[in-house]
Formats: sequence, structure tokens, C-alpha cells
Amino acid sequence: MDARSRIEDSLTGAFALADLPGAPPRLIAAMRYAVFPGGARIRPRLTLAVAAACDPRSAALAAAAGAAIELLHCASLVHDDMPEFDNADTRRGRPAVHRAYGAPLALLAGDALIVLTFQTLAESAARAPARLAPMMRAIASAVGAPHGIAAGQAWECEPAVDLATYQQAKTGALFAAATEAGAAAAGHEGAPWRPLGEFLGQAYQVADDISDAICTEAELGKPVGQDVAHDRPNAVLQMGLPTAVAHLQTLTARAAAAIPECVGAADLRALIRLESARLMPKQRAAQAA
Amino acid sequence: MDARSRIEDSLTGAFALADLPGAPPRLIAAMRYAVFPGGARIRPRLTLAVAAACDPRSAALAAAAGAAIELLHCASLVHDDMPEFDNADTRRGRPAVHRAYGAPLALLAGDALIVLTFQTLAESAARAPARLAPMMRAIASAVGAPHGIAAGQAWECEPAVDLATYQQAKTGALFAAATEAGAAAAGHEGAPWRPLGEFLGQAYQVADDISDAICTEAELGKPVGQDVAHDRPNAVLQMGLPTAVAHLQTLTARAAAAIPECVGAADLRALIRLESARLMPKQRAAQAA
Repeated sequence: MDARSRIEDSLTGAFALADLPGAPPRLIAAMRYAVFPGGARIRPRLTLAVAAACDPRSAALAAAAGAAIELLHCASLVHDDMPEFDNADTRRGRPAVHRAYGAPLALLAGDALIVLTFQTLAESAARAPARLAPMMRAIASAVGAPHGIAAGQAWECEPAVDLATYQQAKTGALFAAATEAGAAAAGHEGAPWRPLGEFLGQAYQVADDISDAICTEAELGKPVGQDVAHDRPNAVLQMGLPTAVAHLQTLTARAAAAIPECVGAADLRALIRLESARLMPKQRAAQAA
Repeated sequence: MDARSRIEDSLTGAFALADLPGAPPRLIAAMRYAVFPGGARIRPRLTLAVAAACDPRSAALAAAAGAAIELLHCASLVHDDMPEFDNADTRRGRPAVHRAYGAPLALLAGDALIVLTFQTLAESAARAPARLAPMMRAIASAVGAPHGIAAGQAWECEPAVDLATYQQAKTGALFAAATEAGAAAAGHEGAPWRPLGEFLGQAYQVADDISDAICTEAELGKPVGQDVAHDRPNAVLQMGLPTAVAHLQTLTARAAAAIPECVGAADLRALIRLESARLMPKQRAAQAA
């Protein structure tokens, strides 16, 4: 089974824990809407790739960890799009959850997706109980305080913010968790795998900043110019487009160099290079640079 | 150490996972404000009492489970009070979190408290790894879909709602989790302990409905008449005050009778009777009945 199918299967399996008789139908519909059809599933693919590089027999547990991370990512998008933050009309080319289902259900769907993350992990533990706590710690730290997604978003509510701290918390943390949890799912120590995730997360954030600054809504499927509109830190606004693109190239090279020694290191390095090419902004950014 | 001190210590310990250098100060402040000083801490006290009845040596793990449950409870109050739902000005006699810190930070504080729940559980697992998954499953099911708090709140967004389903999800689920997790923390099977929690949860909900219908804001420290204002199901509105009070008495008696056999059953039964007396509405309700 290819990685993408494995991830979709795991996400479908996660919903089997939530979508049971007696569940409120609109809540379940809002949760599904937030998760399916997804985006690139870049974080769970990273989890699977790291686990496969550590131990090819770990795919089932890695898929559960990857699904958990993707559920958290989707939850964070649902809450970020709400009127309290971006008040975004669209996401992935269609109405954002709070526009499609209303703000109350968007708030609850985000909450329930966070919880479903941990239900998914708990269920997966039957396969390897000793790996549950390390996977949980990796994933929970990526979304809570002090350095997770919620903390990253909270920096938008502080009078002063350091760009690196903000982006590491808001984006980098979940990428670092994706690599750490992949290693943990394979029974490996997770910490040495964090730098790979951190560099990729930084690269992804810079790519996102570039897209927000130079792409159209039709190209992205979500509103653009949001960082200017919300007075948020943005690498292009801070360093200019050419420097931002050069910075992105440096970060993806560092990511490839940060892969720890393991049986599948060469394959993983090739995959990271391929994925990094996808992160580079499209023609327009390349021309602008 | 008495139960109350043990719970406060565990909650303080949980914050040591979140309140670290580099955390956004206002997020941490909002999270602390939501948790300290607390209310009656009735759910974690139930967890500790059940664990003590099963195995008196389980207090440390039970305190972690109890803290996790209380963090979830506080998170649910923060989100329930937001403009998307009750839009409540006050909670526990002072401004609700969204009034004190603004809606964006209230949203994030609730999210971060949900996550802190699972971080707390993961950390506690070092003591007894095999008990982590059962405790997690008990606690996660109480807050997600299909039958947890988020589902209960979501029923407010559905065109039709069954009162029993609504209250079981919104209140009963966390009480059932409190007893189940207490047993799991002591290494006992959790399922037989759920009826005790379910009956107490139902009793607590009826008591809350009575308070909302007949108490003053000064007595409760939070707005009253909310069920009428928000057109929500309420036992007093549905069955009248005398019948609601009689129903509450029946539920607390069933709770005491539902305690499974265990070494500390007699002590626990006495404690439940004592606590049940606290649930009964004060003088005014007794007179009204």
C-alpha cells in the first residue's frame, strides 16, 4: 500500500472511533469536512517516511501516528480560520468550516478533532504499548504550550513577537513532531529526528509566507495577503522576496543533511529532496527571485 | 495528604509541563486563570475516591488522572462561556476567561488545556505504562465524539435533541470517565465503575438545572436563567421543580447502590452519600419542593 492510501485509511479508521450511532450528525459532518478531502498530507507522509527509514515493519503504528498528526493539523486550521483569528472565508478552495457549519460547530469540531488525535493514539497502543507514551509526548508537545501550535497562535495575541519563535511554534513544532513520532513509532529514540522536522517546518513556513505574499486566491484555494491584513510576521515582508527564496533553499538543504543514520537514510534523503522541490514557490516566485 | 491538596498539587504539576521559558505569557495566564482557583473539584475527587477504594497505593497515578479530568472540565467551561455558546460574562464569581483575556486567547487556552490533559497523562505513564491506554481511552471518550462533552455541546446545534442523550454527553460522560479512570489508575477494569459515575453525573446535571432555574447569580457566581435564555433543555422546565428534586434524590441513591465490590466499598459509599447531600439544592429548592 502506498503512503497516501495508508494515511487515508488511517484517517478513515480514526473516524470509526467518533462516527458511531448516537453521535450528533452535524458535528461529525463538520469534522469530516475539515479532514476530507485533505491537502497534501505532508506531515503524516513525513511520519511514515521516517518510520520506514528506521524500521520498515513499523508502517501500521506509523500510520496511526501520522493520522493523529494530520487530525491535529486539521483541527488547528479549523480554529485558525474562525472569526477570532483569520476570519477566513475559504480553505482548500471551498468555504471554511465556520462558514459551512457556523462558528459554534467549528469550535466544537476543532476540539473534537484534538481529542480524536489522542483516541487514535490510544487505540494504536494495542500494537506496541511501550511506544504510546513517547508518541504521545512528541505529538502533544507540538500542539500545546509552551512551544506548540496553540502557543504559536497565542503569540499573535502578545504585544511583541520574535519571528523565529512564532514560526517554530505555529508550524515547525508539528513538523518536528511528525519526524519524532515517526521514529518513536518505529521504536527509535525520537529526539535525533527533530532537526529534520524543524528545518522542513521552517522551509514550509517560508514557502507559505511567499505564497501568501505573491499568489492568488485561485492558486491557493484560500485567501491570500492574510499576513498583511492581520499584521502578522511574514518572511517576505521582513526580508524581501529574493532573500526569502534563498533562505528557503538553504533550509531544505539543511533538512536533507539532518537525517540521522538509519537503514533507509539514502531513500529518505532522496524523498526529502523531491518533497523540497514541491515546497519551492511556483514559477512566479522563481521569476520574482 | 488530603484529596484536595493532592489534586491541587497535581494541577500545579501539570502546569509545569506548559509554563516553561519561551511560552507566550498571556496564554499561560489565561490557562491558569481558567484552572485556579477552582470550584469544588468534584470530578477529580471522585477519581481519587474510586482509586482509593480499589487500591490505596494508587493515589499518585489517580491524582494525575484526576488532574487530567479537571483540566478537561476547565477547558470545556472556557469554550462553553464563549460568544459562540453561552456568551457568559462571569464564571466562579469573576469575569469569564473570554471577558478577562478576549475570545482569541479563550479559544486557545481551551485548546491548550485539552492538550495539557494528555501531556499530563503521558507523563504519569512512567509510573505504570500499562495503565496509560485504559486511562486515556476513558478520559478521551468523555470529551470527544460520539458521546463526550463536545458531542453534548454539539447537540445544541442540532434541530432536535433528546434530553437524556444531551445531558449524558455534556455532563455524565466526564463523571463516568472520572470513576472509570480512577479504577484504571488502580489497575482495575474501568467499565464496572461507569454506572456510579453516570448516576452521579445525571444527579449533578439535575442539580445544576435546578440551580439555573431558581438561584441568583450572587449565589452561583455565574449567570442564571441561561437554559431559558438559550432555549436549552432543563429538567426543571421539562418536569417541574418538585419532580426534578425527587428525581435528584433517586439518582443519588442509585449512585450509592452502583458501587462495585472492592476493598474500600463501604468508605466510598459513605463518601458518596455525603457528597450527594451537597448536590441537593439549598434551602430554597427544598422549600419549593
